[in-house]
Amino acid sequence: MHIVVLAGGIGGARFLTGVRAHARMTGADVTAIVNVADDVVLHGLRISPDLDSVMYTLGGGADPERGWGRAGETWAIKGELAAYGAEPTWFGLGDKDVATHLVRTTMLNAGYPLSAVTEALCARWQPGVRLLPATDDRLETHVVVADDAGQRAIHFQEWWVRYRGEIPTRRFVFVGADVAKPAAGVLDALSTADVVLLAPSNPVVSIAPILAVSALREALAGGTAPVVGVSPVIGGAPVRGMADRCLAVTGVECTAAGVGGLLGARSAGGVLDGWLVDSTDAGTEVPGVTVGAAPLWMTDEAATAAMVRAALELV
Amino acid sequence: MHIVVLAGGIGGARFLTGVRAHARMTGADVTAIVNVADDVVLHGLRISPDLDSVMYTLGGGADPERGWGRAGETWAIKGELAAYGAEPTWFGLGDKDVATHLVRTTMLNAGYPLSAVTEALCARWQPGVRLLPATDDRLETHVVVADDAGQRAIHFQEWWVRYRGEIPTRRFVFVGADVAKPAAGVLDALSTADVVLLAPSNPVVSIAPILAVSALREALAGGTAPVVGVSPVIGGAPVRGMADRCLAVTGVECTAAGVGGLLGARSAGGVLDGWLVDSTDAGTEVPGVTVGAAPLWMTDEAATAAMVRAALELV
Repeated sequence: MHIVVLAGGIGGARFLTGVRAHARMTGADVTAIVNVADDVVLHGLRISPDLDSVMYTLGGGADPERGWGRAGETWAIKGELAAYGAEPTWFGLGDKDVATHLVRTTMLNAGYPLSAVTEALCARWQPGVRLLPATDDRLETHVVVADDAGQRAIHFQEWWVRYRGEIPTRRFVFVGADVAKPAAGVLDALSTADVVLLAPSNPVVSIAPILAVSALREALAGGTAPVVGVSPVIGGAPVRGMADRCLAVTGVECTAAGVGGLLGARSAGGVLDGWLVDSTDAGTEVPGVTVGAAPLWMTDEAATAAMVRAALELV
Repeated sequence: MHIVVLAGGIGGARFLTGVRAHARMTGADVTAIVNVADDVVLHGLRISPDLDSVMYTLGGGADPERGWGRAGETWAIKGELAAYGAEPTWFGLGDKDVATHLVRTTMLNAGYPLSAVTEALCARWQPGVRLLPATDDRLETHVVVADDAGQRAIHFQEWWVRYRGEIPTRRFVFVGADVAKPAAGVLDALSTADVVLLAPSNPVVSIAPILAVSALREALAGGTAPVVGVSPVIGGAPVRGMADRCLAVTGVECTAAGVGGLLGARSAGGVLDGWLVDSTDAGTEVPGVTVGAAPLWMTDEAATAAMVRAALELV
C-alpha cells in the first residue's frame, strides 16, 4: 500500500503524523508531496517553510506551542539583523532554523535540486515518510494587493507574515507555475500510489499551488489511484491559519462545501473522488464526489490517524 | 594629521584602540587598511575575520575573554550544522557573528564591493576610524602542507584553526595577489597619509598579504609619508598568535631584528623607515632603518596609546 499525500505546512504536518501512525500499523509506505510556493529567499537564505514544518514536526524537532519553527529556538540573529537595519525585519528567523537554511542554500548553490536537498536534510530528521517538494523549479505565490501605495504584487510571506492578510487583496498568482515541472520522484510516486490524500491544508495557497504544476495535476487527475480530500474548514471556519481570508479573495465560500467545490469532482475537471468533512458538516454535498463525515479535529495522533482511516474508507 | 595603519585581526584591533585614543587627543584622522587574506567562504557565508575583529573591538562588541568574535555569543547554529553533518565542523560560527556574515554575503552577492559592505557594517559599529579592506578582489592565503596525505594546499583558516599550524608546512601562497588591486579608498588614503604605521600583527600572514597587493606596496614604498613598524615579537616570542610558527616556515628568525629585516628598509626595497621594538629588545639593529624601543605590551588603551606616540616620535 502506497499512500501519497499532498500537503502544506503546519496543518499538513499534523495530518501526516496521523498518516504515519496509520502506515506504521498497516505497513504502508507514505510519500508527502509538499507545497513550495511559500518559499522565499531572505538575507540570502532559501527558506522552505512548508517542507521545514513537515520535516521538523515528523522529526520531533518542531515547537509544539508556537506551531512553527524549532523547539528551544533562540533569536540572536534576528536581533543582530535588526541592529544592522537589514530588511526585512518582519520575518522571524530563528538561530536553529537558520542552520537548516544555510545547509539548504549551500546545496542549492552547489547545483543540487531541492528534492535532493530535502532528502539530505531528512537524513538527519528521519521523518518516517518520504518528503518531496512539489517542484524543483521556482514557484512562488505572489499576492496582488491594492492599498494607498497603489496596486502591486508582494510575496506571499509578506502578505501573510507582515500584513497578516489584512490588506486589500485582489488575487493570488503562482509565479513560475506555467513552466514548473514536478520534482524528481513526484510522477513516480503518483504513478505507484494506491490512494492520494489531500491534507486539510489551505486550499488556496497550499494545495492550489501544488496542483498548479500542470504535469502533476494531470498525473493526479488522470491516474488510477482514487483521490480523497480532507476538509480544512469545519462549521464555516478554518481549522487553523487564514484559509478564510484566502477563500474570500478567490470568492469561494468558507464552508466544507465551498472548498470541496473549489477542488471539484475528477469527473468534472477537478481532482476529487472523495471528500471527508467534519461530523458537524455531515450532509455536505459536492456534485460528483463521494462525501463522508468524521471528526476532523487533529487533537492528537490517534484522532488524526482515525481521520486518515475514515478518508481511506471513503473510496 | 592623517594616520594610516596596516593591520591584521586581533593584535591589529588592539593596536588600533591605542591609535584611536591618540587621535582623539590630537585631532588626527585614522584609516586602517585591514588584511583580507584570512577571509573564507564557509556554509555559503563570506567571513572576514580580521575586518570583523577590528570592527567588533573598536565598536565595543568584541568578546574580551576569548579575544575573537562577539561578546555574549551563542552557538545554536554550530550545533545544528554539526547535527546535519555539514562540513567543515572545525570553524566555530557564532550565532551573532553569522548575522554579520549574512549581511556581508547578501551585499556582496548584490554586487557591492567589500569596501562598501565594510562601510555599511561600520554604520552600526561606529569604530571611530575608517576601515578599509586591503583589496576588494579575491586574495586568500593558502598553505602548502605535506603530511601522510601528501602535499596539498589548504586554506589558511584550515591550517590555523583546524591544525593550529601543527602540520608539516612548506610555504604560504597569496592566491590572487598577482591581480588584486587596492580597494576603493586605499590609494587615496596612502597618498594623503602623514605617517603610515604597521600594527604589531603577524608579519607573515597579516602584514605580508596586504603588501602583496603590488599597487598598494608601491604606493607605500614610493610615498612621501614615513613608514613605522611596531614589532609583534618581544624577546624572541610573539606577543600573541602563532607568528613564531609562520616565521619558521619562511625561515625568518622569531626576533624583533628578524621581523624588521623581513619588512626591510625602504631604501633597500623594503617598506620601513622606522622600527619600534620592545624595551627588552633595545639595541636591535635593522640596516637602513631607525630603530626605537618602548614598552610594547598592549595591556590597556593608555599603554597602547603610549606605544603609538613612541612610534610616531621615531620619524
